[in-house]
Amino acid sequence: MTQPATILVLNGPNLNLLGSREPEIYGHETLADIEVLCRRKTESFGARLMFHQSNHEGELVDHIQTARGNADAIILNAGAYTHTSIAILDALGTVAMPIYEVHLSNIHRRESFRHRSFVSRVADGVICGFGSLGYELAIEAAARKLGLEPVP
Amino acid sequence: MTQPATILVLNGPNLNLLGSREPEIYGHETLADIEVLCRRKTESFGARLMFHQSNHEGELVDHIQTARGNADAIILNAGAYTHTSIAILDALGTVAMPIYEVHLSNIHRRESFRHRSFVSRVADGVICGFGSLGYELAIEAAARKLGLEPVP
Amino acid sequence: MTQPATILVLNGPNLNLLGSREPEIYGHETLADIEVLCRRKTESFGARLMFHQSNHEGELVDHIQTARGNADAIILNAGAYTHTSIAILDALGTVAMPIYEVHLSNIHRRESFRHRSFVSRVADGVICGFGSLGYELAIEAAARKLGLEPVP
Amino acid sequence: MTQPATILVLNGPNLNLLGSREPEIYGHETLADIEVLCRRKTESFGARLMFHQSNHEGELVDHIQTARGNADAIILNAGAYTHTSIAILDALGTVAMPIYEVHLSNIHRRESFRHRSFVSRVADGVICGFGSLGYELAIEAAARKLGLEPVP
Amino acid sequence: MTQPATILVLNGPNLNLLGSREPEIYGHETLADIEVLCRRKTESFGARLMFHQSNHEGELVDHIQTARGNADAIILNAGAYTHTSIAILDALGTVAMPIYEVHLSNIHRRESFRHRSFVSRVADGVICGFGSLGYELAIEAAARKLGLEPVP
Amino acid sequence: MTQPATILVLNGPNLNLLGSREPEIYGHETLADIEVLCRRKTESFGARLMFHQSNHEGELVDHIQTARGNADAIILNAGAYTHTSIAILDALGTVAMPIYEVHLSNIHRRESFRHRSFVSRVADGVICGFGSLGYELAIEAAARKLGLEPVP
Amino acid sequence: MTQPATILVLNGPNLNLLGSREPEIYGHETLADIEVLCRRKTESFGARLMFHQSNHEGELVDHIQTARGNADAIILNAGAYTHTSIAILDALGTVAMPIYEVHLSNIHRRESFRHRSFVSRVADGVICGFGSLGYELAIEAAARKLGLEPVP
Amino acid sequence: MTQPATILVLNGPNLNLLGSREPEIYGHETLADIEVLCRRKTESFGARLMFHQSNHEGELVDHIQTARGNADAIILNAGAYTHTSIAILDALGTVAMPIYEVHLSNIHRRESFRHRSFVSRVADGVICGFGSLGYELAIEAAARKLGLEPVP
Amino acid sequence: MTQPATILVLNGPNLNLLGSREPEIYGHETLADIEVLCRRKTESFGARLMFHQSNHEGELVDHIQTARGNADAIILNAGAYTHTSIAILDALGTVAMPIYEVHLSNIHRRESFRHRSFVSRVADGVICGFGSLGYELAIEAAARKLGLEPVP
Amino acid sequence: MTQPATILVLNGPNLNLLGSREPEIYGHETLADIEVLCRRKTESFGARLMFHQSNHEGELVDHIQTARGNADAIILNAGAYTHTSIAILDALGTVAMPIYEVHLSNIHRRESFRHRSFVSRVADGVICGFGSLGYELAIEAAARKLGLEPVP
Amino acid sequence: MTQPATILVLNGPNLNLLGSREPEIYGHETLADIEVLCRRKTESFGARLMFHQSNHEGELVDHIQTARGNADAIILNAGAYTHTSIAILDALGTVAMPIYEVHLSNIHRRESFRHRSFVSRVADGVICGFGSLGYELAIEAAARKLGLEPVP
Amino acid sequence: MTQPATILVLNGPNLNLLGSREPEIYGHETLADIEVLCRRKTESFGARLMFHQSNHEGELVDHIQTARGNADAIILNAGAYTHTSIAILDALGTVAMPIYEVHLSNIHRRESFRHRSFVSRVADGVICGFGSLGYELAIEAAARKLGLEPVP
Repeated sequence: MTQPATILVLNGPNLNLLGSREPEIYGHETLADIEVLCRRKTESFGARLMFHQSNHEGELVDHIQTARGNADAIILNAGAYTHTSIAILDALGTVAMPIYEVHLSNIHRRESFRHRSFVSRVADGVICGFGSLGYELAIEAAARKLGLEPVP
Repeated sequence: MTQPATILVLNGPNLNLLGSREPEIYGHETLADIEVLCRRKTESFGARLMFHQSNHEGELVDHIQTARGNADAIILNAGAYTHTSIAILDALGTVAMPIYEVHLSNIHRRESFRHRSFVSRVADGVICGFGSLGYELAIEAAARKLGLEPVP
Repeated sequence: MTQPATILVLNGPNLNLLGSREPEIYGHETLADIEVLCRRKTESFGARLMFHQSNHEGELVDHIQTARGNADAIILNAGAYTHTSIAILDALGTVAMPIYEVHLSNIHRRESFRHRSFVSRVADGVICGFGSLGYELAIEAAARKLGLEPVP
Repeated sequence: MTQPATILVLNGPNLNLLGSREPEIYGHETLADIEVLCRRKTESFGARLMFHQSNHEGELVDHIQTARGNADAIILNAGAYTHTSIAILDALGTVAMPIYEVHLSNIHRRESFRHRSFVSRVADGVICGFGSLGYELAIEAAARKLGLEPVP
Repeated sequence: MTQPATILVLNGPNLNLLGSREPEIYGHETLADIEVLCRRKTESFGARLMFHQSNHEGELVDHIQTARGNADAIILNAGAYTHTSIAILDALGTVAMPIYEVHLSNIHRRESFRHRSFVSRVADGVICGFGSLGYELAIEAAARKLGLEPVP
Repeated sequence: MTQPATILVLNGPNLNLLGSREPEIYGHETLADIEVLCRRKTESFGARLMFHQSNHEGELVDHIQTARGNADAIILNAGAYTHTSIAILDALGTVAMPIYEVHLSNIHRRESFRHRSFVSRVADGVICGFGSLGYELAIEAAARKLGLEPVP
Repeated sequence: MTQPATILVLNGPNLNLLGSREPEIYGHETLADIEVLCRRKTESFGARLMFHQSNHEGELVDHIQTARGNADAIILNAGAYTHTSIAILDALGTVAMPIYEVHLSNIHRRESFRHRSFVSRVADGVICGFGSLGYELAIEAAARKLGLEPVP
Repeated sequence: MTQPATILVLNGPNLNLLGSREPEIYGHETLADIEVLCRRKTESFGARLMFHQSNHEGELVDHIQTARGNADAIILNAGAYTHTSIAILDALGTVAMPIYEVHLSNIHRRESFRHRSFVSRVADGVICGFGSLGYELAIEAAARKLGLEPVP
Repeated sequence: MTQPATILVLNGPNLNLLGSREPEIYGHETLADIEVLCRRKTESFGARLMFHQSNHEGELVDHIQTARGNADAIILNAGAYTHTSIAILDALGTVAMPIYEVHLSNIHRRESFRHRSFVSRVADGVICGFGSLGYELAIEAAARKLGLEPVP
Repeated sequence: MTQPATILVLNGPNLNLLGSREPEIYGHETLADIEVLCRRKTESFGARLMFHQSNHEGELVDHIQTARGNADAIILNAGAYTHTSIAILDALGTVAMPIYEVHLSNIHRRESFRHRSFVSRVADGVICGFGSLGYELAIEAAARKLGLEPVP
Repeated sequence: MTQPATILVLNGPNLNLLGSREPEIYGHETLADIEVLCRRKTESFGARLMFHQSNHEGELVDHIQTARGNADAIILNAGAYTHTSIAILDALGTVAMPIYEVHLSNIHRRESFRHRSFVSRVADGVICGFGSLGYELAIEAAARKLGLEPVP
Repeated sequence: MTQPATILVLNGPNLNLLGSREPEIYGHETLADIEVLCRRKTESFGARLMFHQSNHEGELVDHIQTARGNADAIILNAGAYTHTSIAILDALGTVAMPIYEVHLSNIHRRESFRHRSFVSRVADGVICGFGSLGYELAIEAAARKLGLEPVP
């Protein structure tokens, strides 16, 4: 385990527009707001946060690969690539750490092409439909899995 | 809202055998253990817990119907009925409160007939693959949704 | 034929909530209102009404089985079980009397999983989309089939 | 509403042969017999009947179009075009009046290509399997919908 | 049986253009050429030929219906309607005489939507891929079926 | 192993009507007749018979669960639930004993929706199409599996 | 090429109702308005316009056939027949001239049965979703293809 | 071309039982009867007949291969292998002569797995549903294709 | 019936390797062992055993054909041909005697292409998953069906 | 609206090779030629052109995102990503401006995997099969939609 | 391992015609040419070649079975049986040695029914599209796998 | 042809992790090891090697495009993009040189979504399941195709 424990939160395409994009589905919070929530939650367990976003499938693959040896858990909202990217699936298959899949909306209530997730095939757990709270819940789960205690 | 706020946690078929049934998938915790966890979590928000399990699809429909006026949120692990019961879907359609779907295992990594969920069509959020922690996370989400504060 | 002729009207899951459940689809009438309409119509032909509702698939099977020798026609709104229950289909296969399938809404305009009906495989006739009037039309058809005359 | 109220009953291909065509499925009544039944029923509500049959998809489209302003409800047995005609579906989409779909036989017990109905996508109600009685029931439903009272 | 025996040869849409339409598939013979071949063959058995072509599905239905009582066998090249017309299938279901399906080209070597034939569901025999010879072979088969002898 | 060895024979919906239901498929024997045959066969091996029938999916789940510790083998004719019940599949997954699936008729010669069996996914063996003899054959197989000898 | 060049604009079922039919999809323009636009555009290139509408599949086939020798390009909005008519596809296969497919609405955003187009299999180009402007764009494309120059 | 012209008639599995096998489908003629018919027909054109039957897929492949250089046309009733044998398809692909596919019954009116024919992919023509007459018609077609004249 | 009654046990491809082939699925018994079991069982009913194995589909067809008049029941483990051979299905369709299908393993728990059985379409009964015992059970069932009594 | 109005023309993978890549499908024009045509057309309406090409899915997403506030309409030829990219679909969902989809070839006449377009789900209009003229037509449509007048 | 090491090269149906069969796909080399290439390559590693071809599925099964104990690696071009034979798949499952699948042409560029390979399910490696060179490459791979060195 | 002949070996996503990623599937060799093997093999034919890897679909498209004029053959292991990238397929369609597809593992023995390859649609040959040897075999095939001789 890295010292301190490190949690990588990785965000896929168009999540950089959060707050302005289809707010009736995704709400008004921005990705920066979510990063703040994640940092606060991570630090409450004495852990370190790595937080990235990319519109590029290949960059997401790169980020996942660099998690090897540099992070202890991955929380991944792969956005649209969730449904199409075998490359991301394969990258996740190369890391030996807890993987949690997060979606802001409940993807099962949207178009049918959003029901298939390649990420779910390797994720330990999946949380969807809770908005930004989903990230916090996933971090809490990761912290517990890593045996971290809340910092008093 | 009921006073105090009430959260119904409802469990479907074979969950009564938890701890003895396929522990390599579901772990060693019993349903009684989970009820304790849920009660503790619910009470930490000053709310009341209703906790039921049934092997009967019709009884689950009955329980959901009685939530109308008697509970403020439903957390449902419908077990096998998740994948086959339109009756439960319709019952959930008659209640006007937050609904969270929970599964102990990541159903997307199991047989393909477990990938379709009728519950997901009406659930606000879905949590799967976190074991008993999933119940706690769902209760936390419900409490936040209902505007409850942790009891000091 | 029983004396007087007897018509069994059988209702499936969640129909007990009629009037409060998704009124934009099902209207404001309650199941008790429908029972009154059915009784009036049945009696106008000098026949007797048996009227049941259950949320339990097994109980609906039981009710259909007891129609053997105790009723002369079945009018069945199996609700959600319409689309999933082979057990009800088999039970209907054991009775030798007219069977009419009724749905309040036009199920063919709703989700695709509501387009398949196991009941239709053995029903003599199907009426859907007419609200409570559908029950009355079905009773009229059953009465005619049984050779009953309007009571003056 | 036209004065008096007018109900258009429209029949599709091969229904002109009724009585001679596959009587084990369709019975011995002719289309003229059914027109008599319909007229009697319509007039019992003080309404006027328009009754047409055509083997031509385009003529059925024409008839539906002329219902605009000349009729108050459509009762349509589109026969084989039920399953193949998007043109009829579109024509029905241009009229703003109750539409009831009728079939003499229970189409759900026949070949699978007869299970799909384009008409059902816009029909308010569907009646099938009741033979000529189905037309009468549909007229009764239309009359009620139009607020017509039985003529004493 | 009509006196003399009558064979109806019926041709569907675009067959009027034979000889100019896609000659690499259909050859250079015109429909008039085929009518001559058919008449010669029919008369060689002392029978009478009725020969029609129409681009209209409804007219083909009309022609088939008038075969009832006026012809003793139908040879049908329904062209494109072969693959889409349930109305023609139903019309054929109303006649009680031998029905032979003919296609100039081997439809099973063309686009997959030409592999399904509604006509085949009621045809006694099917001949495809023989060009105009197929008509002659079908007439010979019909004559034999009707017990006709070659006129010396 | 229980002392004496115990074999649970469990029957699903509508099997209580055996003898009166579709005898051309299921024959004239009643379920009581079958119970006699089963008891005789079981006792011929010095074993004890438990024999139940239910129309309720949930009760079948309950019965399977109580087999844990109280029986040594399960012979299951789940009737219609064979094809639809994942709950029964899951219940069977919780018992560690031989499971044999029996059907009176050869389900593979009936409607296609009867070809899929959830029970087959966990059954050690499947016997279908032998009528009541199938139960006897299954009991013989169970006795052999449990190492039981015929009682002299 | 005919002198002057002639462009056939052909319209399928229900387009005669344009302006009154589902205006939220198709807008308020009438087919007469579109004919004016087309004539103006065609004449701006010194060409002649033929403009037809029919609700009858067979008549559309007839119109396409008469284009042979009488027109130099076809612009076809086949309406509902787009998705079902192999007869029209075959008719188009008999003409050797540019064919452009036009739809007022974007058919790919509507029901899935409107996504398949038989016309697209032979059309040189497809324009959809531009309302009446689509006709003008198609005429411009046809004029360019035919080497016509704007009339000064 | 061989001298005299040679026509190979090849029959697949179970056709040796003709006359005793399912006579309601295949009639009472034996394969020997059909061979006589074929020989007479072939000789009427001054040609030679080769006639074989085999239950073995590999032998049918062998027979087709030996047609290369030894026969001028193949008439093939591949029986059950019609629907499953790519090996026969490939063998047919190696010969450069007319190939006609024959079936005694109309395979399109039987089980759906008999609707797919690998032979049809390379056959020049297909004849089915004419019983033994189909062989004669195919020989006539082959003779015409080879330019043979009836022997006076 | 032959004298004495004769039971044909027929085994398909690769069953000759039994005992060495994938023993974790098929066990260590050889086909010779099974023949001994079958002979003993058959003789216990005073009947005669015919026992064959072949890797060739055509030979299996031949064996089934020779059962006509030479055997009174067929017990068939067609191995891999179970799933692919319509030729064997057709051969079985030509015999008028009880047919029992046997598989050593439970084919429904293996790859999905082993779930479809052409043999099941004509078999009276199916036994799978019982290893060599399945053969004995099938012989017992055949003996009972033929009215044979155990030899004292 | 930006001043002057700005139209973004965006091109996907391999379009940079235009002119050398499969000229029998795409013609000999280069992308630079198309840019010239687009610029001339755009300027004829007094508008500004932005013109980009990328082989990278992520860069196309980036370009679409930057259209927000910097352009007034998007004309998108997404090339191969048309059929696979949900990320581009989502990016388009974040902009509130007219979107027109263009393809040089008629994608409906090519391989079936090119028939599905994620872009069509949000595009206002689609033009395909017109070569480079399609871009000009789309710009004209965009200009009209934006209320631009041709610059005299 | 046999002494010297032995490699079995096995060829399926119609490969005996190589050189004359569809040379535009398979080239002009004969199977004898390929045998020479294979022998030369095998001997270059000091190993022995067994080389067979059969048009019979059952014989290919026989050949594979005899490889047990008599060969050390199998190189299989099963031709058409690649796509249909579960019997060959099962035979391959009984041998414990390297298996390499070879096809002369790239089967993935041909008809879709040639895309499925039962052989690939057990083959260690697959080579297709390299013509006869594919056999040489496969022998080289087998030799390396068996630890053989080139004979100097 | 470039001087000296140049072979481009291109590797897709996650292949940079070779040796550490799922070694039970891919083995312990690194991509650098493979590059050494490839260089040695290429140079043994007097040719030059270009060797690239990228996790980015767009970069792989770029690399393929630059092969035009700079390389004489492409050996492509597209990794996960094999199954999803039409963009790579289109890029390959723009080069006129031999293309060989390589996979380390036998993709047909893995998950079904890895069975479809867009690369196979244009590749001349495919080699999979041979580990790093597959690259060497492909280079040998390319060298032979280009007419290169081993350097003495």
